[in-house]
Amino acid sequence: MILSALLTSVGINLGLCFLFFTLYSILRKQPGNVTVYGPRLIQQGGESQQTNAFNLERLLPTAGWVKRALQPTNDDILSNLGLDALVFIRVFVFCIRVFSFASVVGIFILLPVNYMGTEFEEFFDLPKKSLDSFSISNVNDGSNKLWIHFSAIYIFTAVVCYLLYYEHKYLSSKRIDHFYSSKPQPHEFTVLVSGVPLVPGNSISETVESFFREYHSSTYLSHVVVHRTDKLKALMNDAEKVYKKLIRVKSGSMSLQKSMRDGFLGMFGKKVDVVEHYEKKLEKLEDDMRLKQSLLAGEEVPAAFVSFRSRHGAAIASNIQQGIDPTEWLTEPAPEPQDVHWPFFTASFVRRWISNVVVFVAFVALIILYFIPVVLVQGLANLHQLETWFPFLKSILNIKVVSQVITGYLPSLIYQLSVMIVPPIMLLLSSMQGYISHSQIEKSACIKLLVFTVWNSFFAIVLSGSALYRVNVFLEPKNIPRVLAAAVPAQASFFISYVVTSGWTGLSSEIFRLVPLLWNFVMKLFGKEDDKDFEVPSTPFCQEIPTLLFFGLLGTTYFFLSPLILPFLLVYFCLGYVIYRNQLLNVYAAKYETGGKFWPIVHSSTIFSLVLMHVIAVGIFGLKELPLASSLTIPLPILTILFSIYCQRRFLANFKSFPTECLVNKDKADEREQNMSEFYAKLVVAYRDPAVSASRNARGISPEDPPLLRSDQG
Amino acid sequence: MILSALLTSVGINLGLCFLFFTLYSILRKQPGNVTVYGPRLIQQGGESQQTNAFNLERLLPTAGWVKRALQPTNDDILSNLGLDALVFIRVFVFCIRVFSFASVVGIFILLPVNYMGTEFEEFFDLPKKSLDSFSISNVNDGSNKLWIHFSAIYIFTAVVCYLLYYEHKYLSSKRIDHFYSSKPQPHEFTVLVSGVPLVPGNSISETVESFFREYHSSTYLSHVVVHRTDKLKALMNDAEKVYKKLIRVKSGSMSLQKSMRDGFLGMFGKKVDVVEHYEKKLEKLEDDMRLKQSLLAGEEVPAAFVSFRSRHGAAIASNIQQGIDPTEWLTEPAPEPQDVHWPFFTASFVRRWISNVVVFVAFVALIILYFIPVVLVQGLANLHQLETWFPFLKSILNIKVVSQVITGYLPSLIYQLSVMIVPPIMLLLSSMQGYISHSQIEKSACIKLLVFTVWNSFFAIVLSGSALYRVNVFLEPKNIPRVLAAAVPAQASFFISYVVTSGWTGLSSEIFRLVPLLWNFVMKLFGKEDDKDFEVPSTPFCQEIPTLLFFGLLGTTYFFLSPLILPFLLVYFCLGYVIYRNQLLNVYAAKYETGGKFWPIVHSSTIFSLVLMHVIAVGIFGLKELPLASSLTIPLPILTILFSIYCQRRFLANFKSFPTECLVNKDKADEREQNMSEFYAKLVVAYRDPAVSASRNARGISPEDPPLLRSDQG
Repeated sequence: MILSALLTSVGINLGLCFLFFTLYSILRKQPGNVTVYGPRLIQQGGESQQTNAFNLERLLPTAGWVKRALQPTNDDILSNLGLDALVFIRVFVFCIRVFSFASVVGIFILLPVNYMGTEFEEFFDLPKKSLDSFSISNVNDGSNKLWIHFSAIYIFTAVVCYLLYYEHKYLSSKRIDHFYSSKPQPHEFTVLVSGVPLVPGNSISETVESFFREYHSSTYLSHVVVHRTDKLKALMNDAEKVYKKLIRVKSGSMSLQKSMRDGFLGMFGKKVDVVEHYEKKLEKLEDDMRLKQSLLAGEEVPAAFVSFRSRHGAAIASNIQQGIDPTEWLTEPAPEPQDVHWPFFTASFVRRWISNVVVFVAFVALIILYFIPVVLVQGLANLHQLETWFPFLKSILNIKVVSQVITGYLPSLIYQLSVMIVPPIMLLLSSMQGYISHSQIEKSACIKLLVFTVWNSFFAIVLSGSALYRVNVFLEPKNIPRVLAAAVPAQASFFISYVVTSGWTGLSSEIFRLVPLLWNFVMKLFGKEDDKDFEVPSTPFCQEIPTLLFFGLLGTTYFFLSPLILPFLLVYFCLGYVIYRNQLLNVYAAKYETGGKFWPIVHSSTIFSLVLMHVIAVGIFGLKELPLASSLTIPLPILTILFSIYCQRRFLANFKSFPTECLVNKDKADEREQNMSEFYAKLVVAYRDPAVSASRNARGISPEDPPLLRSDQG
Repeated sequence: MILSALLTSVGINLGLCFLFFTLYSILRKQPGNVTVYGPRLIQQGGESQQTNAFNLERLLPTAGWVKRALQPTNDDILSNLGLDALVFIRVFVFCIRVFSFASVVGIFILLPVNYMGTEFEEFFDLPKKSLDSFSISNVNDGSNKLWIHFSAIYIFTAVVCYLLYYEHKYLSSKRIDHFYSSKPQPHEFTVLVSGVPLVPGNSISETVESFFREYHSSTYLSHVVVHRTDKLKALMNDAEKVYKKLIRVKSGSMSLQKSMRDGFLGMFGKKVDVVEHYEKKLEKLEDDMRLKQSLLAGEEVPAAFVSFRSRHGAAIASNIQQGIDPTEWLTEPAPEPQDVHWPFFTASFVRRWISNVVVFVAFVALIILYFIPVVLVQGLANLHQLETWFPFLKSILNIKVVSQVITGYLPSLIYQLSVMIVPPIMLLLSSMQGYISHSQIEKSACIKLLVFTVWNSFFAIVLSGSALYRVNVFLEPKNIPRVLAAAVPAQASFFISYVVTSGWTGLSSEIFRLVPLLWNFVMKLFGKEDDKDFEVPSTPFCQEIPTLLFFGLLGTTYFFLSPLILPFLLVYFCLGYVIYRNQLLNVYAAKYETGGKFWPIVHSSTIFSLVLMHVIAVGIFGLKELPLASSLTIPLPILTILFSIYCQRRFLANFKSFPTECLVNKDKADEREQNMSEFYAKLVVAYRDPAVSASRNARGISPEDPPLLRSDQG
């Protein structure tokens, strides 16, 4: 790719971004779109005062949202949006810091060195220069200039490690602060016990009660045995749908049609009153539910949520092996009540084991299948290959603009589209693995997605694009640096345009929220406006973090190979910082708090990127006939990994659980300040299965009595 | 090697064994040898009533000791000798069971199949048959008889896994029983805290006190800060030596010489009274110690033994992260007081880190250096090679007896001698690694020794002996089965004679205790008899367990290759069972209890042996052109590893610590039964550094006051 093709691509994308931002700044001021651009605000009761009155200011694009997005401090974010949001924002801050430094070094030192590597004279005619002139491949073999790259790698690694350490320290202290400042949460006082042994003559509830009364007499508070509720839940869902319709009918939004036929699709059979029809249906479901609920006592699962009087008590129960048989009385910290993945308890052990295997196979299959779009994309990026396959395209492809659009823009667009369907698949796969909470599922999906992205968007493209097709290189560890060093620099231009298209456009479509906007529009068109029924979308951490980390990986590996990528990445991270702050403040609402558990993934990914860069550097210096530099780079990955081990020892434990010091301090503070007896009363019922508790309460359902049925949405 | 050579070797060794046993049964009855053959009994106050009177029975060999050795039940062993001794005995029982089954299958099914593999006619002239005729290499390629071997492998694996599971279950229940029936032990109530942060203005002792009073207020009892005592300890040792001499002088055993010169080696200088001389010396050392002891307050190490009022309290402190910084307030279960490796605390972190690296390098170097004796041994086993090196030996080597002795006996004798020096080296290496207790050092040395033995006595011999010299095969995982399958069967005869020589002779020399016997004899000869000063040797678990496991590995891998080895192994294990029961009852005394922590090593080693056998089987069936059997063997190692994982999950946790259930039950039982306040008083001082407490007490030393100084021997 030549420089002008890159500039074309940058131009198109800059234009698109500005278009999206302008549209956004206008559309967000329209009161009708508040459910699209400010669902979080509505939920909190803000912005609903907006008048429908027309004024000119509403049609002018302004940048006020940028200012508002940048206003809140880190502490505001922590207290309003939670720790996960802070971690997410800090990842951007971390990346911006890293790539600001990298850009300065890359653009002002490495780029000139590369450009003047071989040819001094041809300093003009920049637009027609290949991007390779800006990369390390332009430097002569054995040139001493490579020592500049060598030093840059060492300094860059040191800076990244320092920033990582700083961020670790900052976040772990914030995590403790957040813990100290938060109100008592049910999950802090609760452990999930599984593998409760079956004692003949005792119910599971009795067994749990007697065990914990015996061995945790001073701290045990209460327990809730888990029930198998999948059938009940299906009934509940039906009932809720009918109930919603009933309300709608009664309130008049469906008033056009006061009666309907009770046959197939409401079209045949005798005419009945709609209200009556739904009420009857609901009654029948109610009876079914009551029947199921009375049968539930016999469907206990050998697992229970056990609550304690103090956090320290819960930590004691979850950290020490409880029963003599290590496969019984397994304890682990409970997730938040709204975070519990109830279907987990329904599946038997064997089913879960099998589905784990199935998930693994599916994941591997997915990775392999993804070679197809990858190869397709590569075909587009290397136009001459396409020409040999389809000779009739030759004339079209020879038109300059077409070829520039195709090589600069199309490949990554196609690729991006094919990547878009992956996150839902990963979430689905992870949800089948038997995790007990939604947050664990998300975390697992995040890791899967990261592995998938790094493999398919980096290694597959690099190895297939360089026509090496040598995936089996990973079976011969000694050759890895050499092969990567040959293959990676060749793909620099593809990844630069990937950052510009996929990265920038991805961000602007994130803020524009095209799909919800269209959906909102269509709903309004068909008169199905349902202002109170909309759901606030939950923050898509598990989809955004892998993307973010992948761009970090690109920047790190290409830092010394092709520093031209750095400014584009920096723009990406700055844009992302503003946009995601805006989205977190206005659009998304966290359904549960993972306590910053995404951060360790960021750490591992950063260390992996650095080591990958070192491996490539070893190979490059070898290829460039500077064996001394190659050997001197080898200590660097070792030092990096030692640093990583140190960090993990120093900080990681803090992201898993809280130490005694914090737990006891917080317990004591609670005793002084909070009304604990009130909290205990809430705690006792916090972990009731929504299905059981709802159906237990929902004795006489009436439209005046909505919260009962709705409680299963949490 | 031909059968007659093997029989020569067996004959020599059987003769040696009987000689040793006869001598033993006579010598042990001589009262003068009681310190050699019954030190444990003396310590317990038994057998000292033996009279010196002569009687004929004393000179006749009898087998009464065998009966006495077999008498105690497992429960007797558990209560008298501790859990470690029981584990050791049960390893023999496990091996006897495994190899009884293996022998029956091997001798009655596999051996005939092998022998009739190719040649039916030459059934006669057995003595001149090569041992190869009894091994799998005698079976024709592609023969369907190999399916018998295939089935034998599956059945054998199943039997071993069943027995392993049974033994796991038995031992873990015995461990719990032992715990319930034991008296309160200081180490159960204590944790070792390291990484105590330095608080300005507070001593370490104050910091520890305030931390545990704050966060473990209900269970905290007391603490002992560790001091840097290496210099004090050197003084102590000197003082003790002088003190012992003083006692000896006073009691008259050195009375020949009432006065001595005080110059160099007591030969020059003015004459002084010996008693006076030593008393003066002791006084000076005393002063030095007092000075050092007063300086000790300033030499606190940031580590402390913290004792709690209950076992559960200690478990809570050791299982949960204590401080906010995970590198501070590190807790771990304390070892028994007499098991603490005090020099550990003296070394700084950096020194320990460096010595860890040094130890690793030394270990690797030792393994590599050991190729020299291995190659030498192989030269002797393959006589023709020796002949080509030293042609002048040809005439001697052609004498039948000489060649039989050399090929059948010498190689493993030389090898055994060179192996004898390894265990002390491994112990030395492990003691440099910074473990906090002697038992951990022993365990680490045991693992090192096992790795060393398996590598050098198996892989090195197998690969060098088969003239393949291809250690680098382990870098190409795919070729491992094929290479092993070619090399391992070729060494069958060497290992059979190894079992007979090294195994049997090792056992008989173990019971005969040649070195202590000679030492005892020499001491008597020079009149230095010192009946009360002898030390009971501690059980050499860390040296014997690797040997035992190595023989298990040999038996497992050669089970289907060359079943002729099995009866010899069975004899070894049966002999070992009797002999070690005898030794444990009469000779050795455990200095500390590891709580059966050697068992997991046995488990891992057994699983490794099985998997190694499977790998060889895969290779053999491949070489023998039975690819179907080869493929059908592949699930076996996978199943074995799954079984191992299950066992580890099911049992291993129980060998590491005790569950809440046991701890709380035992705590409650203690409260009812024991006089706990008395125990607490002991507990408070249990973890005083012997150096500090001894010097603190030893204000006025006098010969009437021996226990004070002697207390540092524990």
